[in-house]
Amino acid sequence: GFICLPPGCRPDNVLPLMTEPDDPKRPPLDRLLFFSDGVFAIAITLLALDLRLPPLAHPSSWALVDALAANAQRFVSFFISFEVVGAFWLAHQRLFSVINRFTRALGWLNLLFLMSVALIPLRTSLVGEYGHFKAAVIFYAASLVFASVTSNLIWWYAASGRRLLDPQASKQDLRIITARSFVTLMLFLLSVGAAFVST
Amino acid sequence: GFICLPPGCRPDNVLPLMTEPDDPKRPPLDRLLFFSDGVFAIAITLLALDLRLPPLAHPSSWALVDALAANAQRFVSFFISFEVVGAFWLAHQRLFSVINRFTRALGWLNLLFLMSVALIPLRTSLVGEYGHFKAAVIFYAASLVFASVTSNLIWWYAASGRRLLDPQASKQDLRIITARSFVTLMLFLLSVGAAFVST
Amino acid sequence: GFICLPPGCRPDNVLPLMTEPDDPKRPPLDRLLFFSDGVFAIAITLLALDLRLPPLAHPSSWALVDALAANAQRFVSFFISFEVVGAFWLAHQRLFSVINRFTRALGWLNLLFLMSVALIPLRTSLVGEYGHFKAAVIFYAASLVFASVTSNLIWWYAASGRRLLDPQASKQDLRIITARSFVTLMLFLLSVGAAFVST
Amino acid sequence: GFICLPPGCRPDNVLPLMTEPDDPKRPPLDRLLFFSDGVFAIAITLLALDLRLPPLAHPSSWALVDALAANAQRFVSFFISFEVVGAFWLAHQRLFSVINRFTRALGWLNLLFLMSVALIPLRTSLVGEYGHFKAAVIFYAASLVFASVTSNLIWWYAASGRRLLDPQASKQDLRIITARSFVTLMLFLLSVGAAFVST
Repeated sequence: GFICLPPGCRPDNVLPLMTEPDDPKRPPLDRLLFFSDGVFAIAITLLALDLRLPPLAHPSSWALVDALAANAQRFVSFFISFEVVGAFWLAHQRLFSVINRFTRALGWLNLLFLMSVALIPLRTSLVGEYGHFKAAVIFYAASLVFASVTSNLIWWYAASGRRLLDPQASKQDLRIITARSFVTLMLFLLSVGAAFVST
Repeated sequence: GFICLPPGCRPDNVLPLMTEPDDPKRPPLDRLLFFSDGVFAIAITLLALDLRLPPLAHPSSWALVDALAANAQRFVSFFISFEVVGAFWLAHQRLFSVINRFTRALGWLNLLFLMSVALIPLRTSLVGEYGHFKAAVIFYAASLVFASVTSNLIWWYAASGRRLLDPQASKQDLRIITARSFVTLMLFLLSVGAAFVST
Repeated sequence: GFICLPPGCRPDNVLPLMTEPDDPKRPPLDRLLFFSDGVFAIAITLLALDLRLPPLAHPSSWALVDALAANAQRFVSFFISFEVVGAFWLAHQRLFSVINRFTRALGWLNLLFLMSVALIPLRTSLVGEYGHFKAAVIFYAASLVFASVTSNLIWWYAASGRRLLDPQASKQDLRIITARSFVTLMLFLLSVGAAFVST
Repeated sequence: GFICLPPGCRPDNVLPLMTEPDDPKRPPLDRLLFFSDGVFAIAITLLALDLRLPPLAHPSSWALVDALAANAQRFVSFFISFEVVGAFWLAHQRLFSVINRFTRALGWLNLLFLMSVALIPLRTSLVGEYGHFKAAVIFYAASLVFASVTSNLIWWYAASGRRLLDPQASKQDLRIITARSFVTLMLFLLSVGAAFVST
């Protein structure tokens, strides 16, 4: 469709108004978000698979309660990881609420970030099973640092010189996003350090 | 694109008409729905994994029929859980048909709800295998209560003082949603009670 | 945004033009399609999981070739089922290209259809492993009949009296969809019959 | 909504402006992209499942480190395949940024391509486990050739005579896409050859 623009409706100030039915292909940034949301959804749902009980030798109501109680550590790590992946999703959503252009480099950085998200369920299952060993906790915290670093990379790439940002985004908003991303990274780094030091 | 507004087409009453190609980033509420639909889709499809047959010792056509018949209890719990997850999806869709603003708190409540949805396949497999033990039924019913409570939390948060609601939603519609959410919660609570009492 | 309508731009002929940023909530039919596409995508990708090789006792290049050759029957059933699920997806897309209203009944019928889709990988793995037994083939064909019946139910519900159809859909298109849906169902029914009769 | 078109606003030059709320059904090409993005998201996330550790006989921090070190080969093939699937996703996105019409043949070719994507995790796990055997590497490279061939098929079908292309796409862009697709295919073919020749 075409739409006439002020101050008059002469053909030369008519701009194409590309609504969906005229131009069904989606902009590449939309597909990046669909794809990312898909990876997040799968990674977060796979977390629950670790909670499956092993077959009970002598099944009974109390045996079930015991088995579920013995599973408590895994449940705690499921809960924490669900919140962590959810927090990364919220952060991703925040970044892309002001990013409004796509480049191939953005696509590759986003892939690196998604790879780090896909690894979280794996590290979670490590903590769920071997959480009393320092190495499991360190590997888990390191995977969160990896996710946090790649998410910061996306932001540094997109925001430096406002390369891919919505020109209308307020300076205030950008400062908040930068601060949050950086503080999160520092916290995860500290947690790796804490895991090393603790006995 | 810009579009001129009545009563005249002066530059000062021109509003940006943000159609997709001009502003490819999606509003945060849209991403919340994509992400949620992804989690629902995975949780509901994973339900079928429990129906896999163990390897047959002496495979034959009748051995297959026997194995599938022995699987009947799991099939019933698959069917029920498919309907239950589907009902939660329809309820989520109903809530978000009148919610039209996003806040971080909504994002976190929605995550809590999705966590409860991700746990349903797990509890279903418990009932499918140990359904003749009271504890399995209670854990299953409790997971539905959890999903129902978090879905009510989303609604209470979004609807109190019409905080995040579409201003054009009719009072009638809101009352129906509130009533349905509350009644569902009560039914699931009753089913937990019934599971306790039954022998 | 508001947009002025011919023949003039008086406030009383101004209609709300609800583009995305003004009204971020998606119509319920869109969510039904996202959810369905998610279930299809998962079901079709899970098909490949059955092709995993068992651990090799004496691994070597030729042992790998042998194991993959021994897997040929599963590969054939993977290929067929990929095409079958894909064909159901194309059929679903065709139906919903002319359906443009949502009702709760449509949501429930669609859930029943998605359940039948979620069962196809399961029945495929049965055929991949026990395809030389008549029962496996019958169960597989029966699951396709189930999917075809529920897809016909969606169409019969939506199209009778053009209940949920786009008023601009041509009679010709509707007749083609009806014919295709019915013929597919007949073919699958015949294949169940053929599986029974064959020795 | 309706919108008036230059040069005047007479009823006869008013075109329907089909924004979402007026016409909630999505064009078929959009659904093809949702479905494809879902398959990509699942295939890429499933890659991580191969990295699960076997149960440790004598769990300790060092046993964990050893087990993860012993997993290095799988981790390398996970990393490579993540990049490869990501590259196919970026290529798919590039093709469909200029394709803007849907035909059933396009749907079937896209299904064939998605099948090849769904097979990549499988071949990756082969390389991760048996990467020191030539056959595993050849099967892996062959699966990438298959994906590359089907992606080229989509392009040859859509671009020949600009059958399904956006008429506004520049010749320059099309040439780049054709060149990239072809070069990728050649590289994968060479890698199969190299795998055969190498000792």
